[in-house]
Amino acid sequence: MEYTKINADILAKLEAIVGAANVLTDVEKMQPYAHDEVTDPAFHHLPEAVVFAETTEQVAAVVALANAEHFPVVPRGAGTGLVCGAVTVYGGIVLSLEKMNKILEINEEAMYAVVEPGVRTSDLQAAVEERGLFYAGDPCSGDSCFIGGNIATNAGGNRAVKYGTTRHQVYEIEVVNPTGKIVTLGARLKKQSTGYCMDQLIIGSEGTLGIITKATLKLLPKPENVMDLLAVFDDPAAAIGTVNKIIKGGITPTCVEYMDNITLKSVERYLGTKLQGSDTGNYLIVEVEGINEDDLDEKAMKMDEICSENGASDVLVADHDKIWESRKAFAEAVRAESIIVCKEDVVVPVDREPELFAEILRLAEKYQLVTRIAAHAGDGNIHLNILKQPQEDHEEWYARVEANQQELYKFIYELGGRLSGEHGIGYKRKALMAEFTNPDELEMMKAIKRALDPNNILNPGKILDV
Amino acid sequence: MEYTKINADILAKLEAIVGAANVLTDVEKMQPYAHDEVTDPAFHHLPEAVVFAETTEQVAAVVALANAEHFPVVPRGAGTGLVCGAVTVYGGIVLSLEKMNKILEINEEAMYAVVEPGVRTSDLQAAVEERGLFYAGDPCSGDSCFIGGNIATNAGGNRAVKYGTTRHQVYEIEVVNPTGKIVTLGARLKKQSTGYCMDQLIIGSEGTLGIITKATLKLLPKPENVMDLLAVFDDPAAAIGTVNKIIKGGITPTCVEYMDNITLKSVERYLGTKLQGSDTGNYLIVEVEGINEDDLDEKAMKMDEICSENGASDVLVADHDKIWESRKAFAEAVRAESIIVCKEDVVVPVDREPELFAEILRLAEKYQLVTRIAAHAGDGNIHLNILKQPQEDHEEWYARVEANQQELYKFIYELGGRLSGEHGIGYKRKALMAEFTNPDELEMMKAIKRALDPNNILNPGKILDV
Repeated sequence: MEYTKINADILAKLEAIVGAANVLTDVEKMQPYAHDEVTDPAFHHLPEAVVFAETTEQVAAVVALANAEHFPVVPRGAGTGLVCGAVTVYGGIVLSLEKMNKILEINEEAMYAVVEPGVRTSDLQAAVEERGLFYAGDPCSGDSCFIGGNIATNAGGNRAVKYGTTRHQVYEIEVVNPTGKIVTLGARLKKQSTGYCMDQLIIGSEGTLGIITKATLKLLPKPENVMDLLAVFDDPAAAIGTVNKIIKGGITPTCVEYMDNITLKSVERYLGTKLQGSDTGNYLIVEVEGINEDDLDEKAMKMDEICSENGASDVLVADHDKIWESRKAFAEAVRAESIIVCKEDVVVPVDREPELFAEILRLAEKYQLVTRIAAHAGDGNIHLNILKQPQEDHEEWYARVEANQQELYKFIYELGGRLSGEHGIGYKRKALMAEFTNPDELEMMKAIKRALDPNNILNPGKILDV
Repeated sequence: MEYTKINADILAKLEAIVGAANVLTDVEKMQPYAHDEVTDPAFHHLPEAVVFAETTEQVAAVVALANAEHFPVVPRGAGTGLVCGAVTVYGGIVLSLEKMNKILEINEEAMYAVVEPGVRTSDLQAAVEERGLFYAGDPCSGDSCFIGGNIATNAGGNRAVKYGTTRHQVYEIEVVNPTGKIVTLGARLKKQSTGYCMDQLIIGSEGTLGIITKATLKLLPKPENVMDLLAVFDDPAAAIGTVNKIIKGGITPTCVEYMDNITLKSVERYLGTKLQGSDTGNYLIVEVEGINEDDLDEKAMKMDEICSENGASDVLVADHDKIWESRKAFAEAVRAESIIVCKEDVVVPVDREPELFAEILRLAEKYQLVTRIAAHAGDGNIHLNILKQPQEDHEEWYARVEANQQELYKFIYELGGRLSGEHGIGYKRKALMAEFTNPDELEMMKAIKRALDPNNILNPGKILDV
């Protein structure tokens, strides 16, 4: 991809749009913008400049300039991505939305919120819960990630079992499109059949088809009765085999999370704590909501019955904060063990999960991989982390990782699965996306990218090459 | 639009693909395919041929031929549309999917169904309910419409308040794209972030971006406790003003339907029956589901309280079959009154509905329009039917209808609404779509149409002109 380098003339024009204080070129200051959460330095790329936008109009002007001058614009939220999506792999600027961080409206009567893209997910959650409302989106990185990034990647998280992913929480997005036009897509409506569903196309397109500059999000009444149950299984297969039975059991869980034994021990070390049943246990964490205490009790009994029948050694009501602290510490605990990690984010139909787990374990054995596994098991999404050990040679290790991917992905696609459940494709998985996606479907996606972004300005070379 | 006429050579090629028995050119036999449910003859157009496909491969071959020879292909389900969408306005063939009418699989364990596009919606509902399962899609025309058409128009219906529209019921679609390639879009997954959301783009695109040849649909456990409540209001504004209070009241209704007094009387005449409180009453019909009888009773009491406080003269438990027979007879009752009807399908945020109703009544008075109104009030979708009276001159009447539309749509877009909630745009509303849609958004839609259908073969001139 041939682009214009960011020269003095372009910098002056950028400064004219956003102000000199909002343009960084100092290498040291730009370092934090050279990578996302991918720790492997092979995926770090210093931008030519970092530009902070404070208004939608500035975003539009920057994108218009990029089209005129022909340089890449890589939109960036909190930089908590895991696929090298918000990094300037092909040069150009990082356009940070972190200064557009206001909650513009919380409407209690009609139950919606209007936010700028740089609002931290947990800040929105807290702000609406104060008013008795509830934002259902809940990525594990909620304490640091931004709503804009959640929308751009269609972030999943813990509550997708009941509430769906981020795309299901969005009424309307204001977007700067790849040619620099400001458009509002979707609407604050329960339904509509008024032309193509542009909002859902842009959501999850990882900044390649539009930059989200404002979003109207659905809110719900805050669930009043919530309970976390912990079921401990000695046999990992028994734990995973129980998931679809819980889903089918009429309990309608909010979350069904899985952590395997070796991962529990990793989290214990990281948090310096002792987790229940961690000697030999594997966890299913199930969160349920009830219309009242009786309903919760009934669901707890039903859960106990299902899990015990299927091999749980223990089923108990868990301390909410403690259990979720341990679940959410997963990523950091892994990082504390190894700076070089291959994070798989595969997804399959929930009823096919037992087969996938068996295959994951078989392949880990075959390729001698050190793994940590946590899963949003209730929606078939498994985070298989493969940790490079200090004594392993990088190249040799990576060859085994790739061989594992080839077998694993082939198996997953045969099960009707996909290679990413919630992290997205970005730059890191682009080659695998090209390999495993049906060529005619991929060609349709490319045709759309070419049509909406004729100069290939917005986050080029992410998801796919046109 | 310049296309090749369907000549003897093309007919022979079509017959070679689908068999001679599956190609109609006889004018009389093609009459039923010259129109949808739009009764106005101005929207009737005889196709050059009607082709029945029996397999996906045949559909793909027909579309490939259409690209090679350059003739329009208008896909068609049951022909129950209301916007002249499945009619060959610009010549070419109607491609009927009615012979692809098999339910291929109902999976009770994983709760999904795989169907061909020509399956009648009510047949699917019945088939899954026999097995204790539930398909949430429920257009009022369910007894006659097909699943393929439901998906193509993103049909709404009665249960969208709780379950969303057709696009929310779909896991995966097999599609023949505009260049004749067979692609499977979406997947039977709770989540994924693997490239652009092509399935949701095709859903609701009214056959302009792809022909649905198979669908995998979500099923749910059949709700065991369901109750229909009828609240009768003397004041229409009071009835509509109560809707958002019901939605906010923690009841989570499945449906909230509205019928005004004059419409109730119309339905009474059509069905030859007497409806409760129809002398002066306006109806809210509210369907609720409960986890048990106690829960239902609690919701009924809550409903009674909300409705009575807001002016209902009567709130009672309704006979399910009878109340829904009267609601679903709306369209036929209107047709019995007048063959020429303008059917508005506008949608606004639910909390803005009272303002819209006031404006509808004001404009009806101003333009002296004879109206019948039923509404999916729980999702802000209002079916305003404007009936031409025998004594009215067509041209003069239509001028008033158009003047009404101009004022009404302007108002609706100011409220954040859209011109179609569930019927779609088709040919009938294309000019209004072009007028009221943001030009930059419309240009993005056109770019997508041009990119995916470079020869403008699939249902050309519907929704938009490229």
